[in-house]
Amino acid sequence: MLYYENPLRASWPEILARPVLDSRSFEMQVQQILEEVRAHGDDALFRFTAQFDRATLDRLTVTETEMAAAAGKLTDELKAAIEMAKSNINCFHVAQKQEIAVVETLPGVRCWRKSVAIERIGLYIPGGSAPLFSTILMLGVPAALAGCKEIILCTPPRPDGSVDPAILYTAGLVGIRNIFKVGGAQAIGALAFGTESIGRVDKIFGPGNAYVTLAKQLVSKEGIAIDLPAGPSELVILADASADARFVAADLLSQAEHGPDSQVILVSDSSELLSEVRNEVQVQLTVLSRKNIAEQALKNSRLILVQNLATGLELLNQYAPEHLILNCENAILLAEKVVNAGSVFIGNWSPESAGDYASGTNHTLPTYGYARAYSGVSLDSFVKKITFQELSKEGLQSLGPAIETMAAAEQLDAHKNAVSIRLAALREGVIS
Amino acid sequence: MLYYENPLRASWPEILARPVLDSRSFEMQVQQILEEVRAHGDDALFRFTAQFDRATLDRLTVTETEMAAAAGKLTDELKAAIEMAKSNINCFHVAQKQEIAVVETLPGVRCWRKSVAIERIGLYIPGGSAPLFSTILMLGVPAALAGCKEIILCTPPRPDGSVDPAILYTAGLVGIRNIFKVGGAQAIGALAFGTESIGRVDKIFGPGNAYVTLAKQLVSKEGIAIDLPAGPSELVILADASADARFVAADLLSQAEHGPDSQVILVSDSSELLSEVRNEVQVQLTVLSRKNIAEQALKNSRLILVQNLATGLELLNQYAPEHLILNCENAILLAEKVVNAGSVFIGNWSPESAGDYASGTNHTLPTYGYARAYSGVSLDSFVKKITFQELSKEGLQSLGPAIETMAAAEQLDAHKNAVSIRLAALREGVIS
Repeated sequence: MLYYENPLRASWPEILARPVLDSRSFEMQVQQILEEVRAHGDDALFRFTAQFDRATLDRLTVTETEMAAAAGKLTDELKAAIEMAKSNINCFHVAQKQEIAVVETLPGVRCWRKSVAIERIGLYIPGGSAPLFSTILMLGVPAALAGCKEIILCTPPRPDGSVDPAILYTAGLVGIRNIFKVGGAQAIGALAFGTESIGRVDKIFGPGNAYVTLAKQLVSKEGIAIDLPAGPSELVILADASADARFVAADLLSQAEHGPDSQVILVSDSSELLSEVRNEVQVQLTVLSRKNIAEQALKNSRLILVQNLATGLELLNQYAPEHLILNCENAILLAEKVVNAGSVFIGNWSPESAGDYASGTNHTLPTYGYARAYSGVSLDSFVKKITFQELSKEGLQSLGPAIETMAAAEQLDAHKNAVSIRLAALREGVIS
Repeated sequence: MLYYENPLRASWPEILARPVLDSRSFEMQVQQILEEVRAHGDDALFRFTAQFDRATLDRLTVTETEMAAAAGKLTDELKAAIEMAKSNINCFHVAQKQEIAVVETLPGVRCWRKSVAIERIGLYIPGGSAPLFSTILMLGVPAALAGCKEIILCTPPRPDGSVDPAILYTAGLVGIRNIFKVGGAQAIGALAFGTESIGRVDKIFGPGNAYVTLAKQLVSKEGIAIDLPAGPSELVILADASADARFVAADLLSQAEHGPDSQVILVSDSSELLSEVRNEVQVQLTVLSRKNIAEQALKNSRLILVQNLATGLELLNQYAPEHLILNCENAILLAEKVVNAGSVFIGNWSPESAGDYASGTNHTLPTYGYARAYSGVSLDSFVKKITFQELSKEGLQSLGPAIETMAAAEQLDAHKNAVSIRLAALREGVIS
């Protein structure tokens, strides 16, 4: 872990620099996979699945029988945990529903916005070593709340052609019926272009490796929306002397185990805490199953001593972390000063894991500094807000002259004329 | 205008196809401009401004003197019109403010979302033949409402080095003080990377020609957010026999005059209306100042006869227009069935021009079919919504076991441990 003591402001950009993401070396390969899927549909999917997932499939669809069998393979404890998480996520996201509010900007000029579900969405859920069924809750629950008509889930099969039962069970629980055994860039291609089995969607959600991420980026240039641009997962902790070093160390490690490129930064005004945490990390690390991954991530992690918490806040706002834990005495007050972050965890009893799984907030969040301008996934991500306006004759009579004047000044005669011709008709009284 | 009579559903995709946008021919040039700006800052901006705008500048900044002089160059009528538009836009967008609502998903698990302004934004306003000061209102008013700290406006100078006074006046009116005389891809580069004079921003808004659009797309790959992917402007009108053909023709022309690539589609269940509109378009076209542009756009426009309005609605939802006028007897009922559109204009007295300028809704809208998944610009575009969560000891005790179970099932031990270590401390009672 790299240690910085009261670094000069001028050095912050360098200290806070993220690794450069360079996908150029495999862009050609990903583009080729996409083109193959576009040209050959299901055939290409079967082929790539055999090649990359070492699974030979007869069909891409998960059957009703497979779905029905999934529940029996999960412990009751796990099913109850998933139920609790689902309920909390539902509770938090249902509160994001917005009523239609008609605004009468002038008498007879009525304007409103209406949230309308995106009709067809695709969810990508990575398989492999860790089946991320929690992400199905994070995407499937708001999609169902929004009322998306068609929800398609793609996930890579295991070599024996099966899908992890936790994935199938969770998908069933949130009402997803269209599940396909296809992963990688080829799954993104299928969702973007459609194949014989898989319908084309309007927006693609979900995490994935560098190939999946790049594929999402490439299809987004062709008009398919995506949830968020993606980078490695990140955590910043701002902690003072009141924090428990064991908890802080555990939180840092929970982020570090995500991947060797995870970003982990601890900022504190207490050098004692920093050194305690450094020791505690080593202690806790030894027993982790993903120790090797966490160790690599820790090599690039940073411990930063700052003169006071206000400076710490400035520094973290400049970094714009995906996850931010405020483990300080006045955490709730500090939270008000957070400007750039995806999700914020307040106090000693709010580990990042809570939001990753079950507190109710969404865990699909902006990484790589995107928190400066992007929000995490929410109910909003599954709808578009269409604006409506209805003018009465009186409304147009009040507003019309201003429109004519502005259109004329912008030298758009036909824009002006669309109003003038109506005002003339009203003046002539030939229109009822 | 191309005429289609009750086209078969299978032919819809072809009839509704948009022109392919291919920017590959000038991608290299735009990329070079961006790299020059990144490497040489202001120097490059002066150079490109001399080259492309034929303006030799001493300074990029618009001075206080220039700002102060602008008002005197506008008629009182235009100033009043801009004021009215500003007031309506403000009225509609202020209603989009959201209060923070804390959701207690479980006792002791408090979660909320907070809208926080994007700190630094850039607005691009095209100059040239038509100074689009209306776009300054559409972007500047919600930016001010959101509380963006730094708002930078770039607009190309005229050959004499001046900027259209309507642009300066409107910018001043919405409180924008940082205005720079730079246009094209070089302006986008300046906003994305920063130069000696122009600060780097987090998000770039605003319309532009194909170079500007491509530059926005290219910098968005480097982590700068942009408002919307852009394509040519579009209008669909669904009209029945009750519509006034003169109004419909005027509305079609108001879209057609935008540019030769504008998309204009009229859908109706009345062949009489379609033929009347076709004639009326020719009549009105003759007197337009932008007649040549409109004529070119009309060549690709479509008149589509459908058996009934329900079919018309299906067809337009499939197209997903930027602007949609419903000029039918039951327009308000039909509006409820609109699934894909940017902004909808209801009835005989709601021309698109109303929304373009002054009704209060935003005119920065999704084109090119993006309306299937994207919303137009709104207050939301100028904020990110940060989620917060605060667990009490009791909250963690209720939620903790579910998190542990799920983390274990996803094979993320360290995620589990961040909870376990806290629950153990609580059990041992060593923590106050």
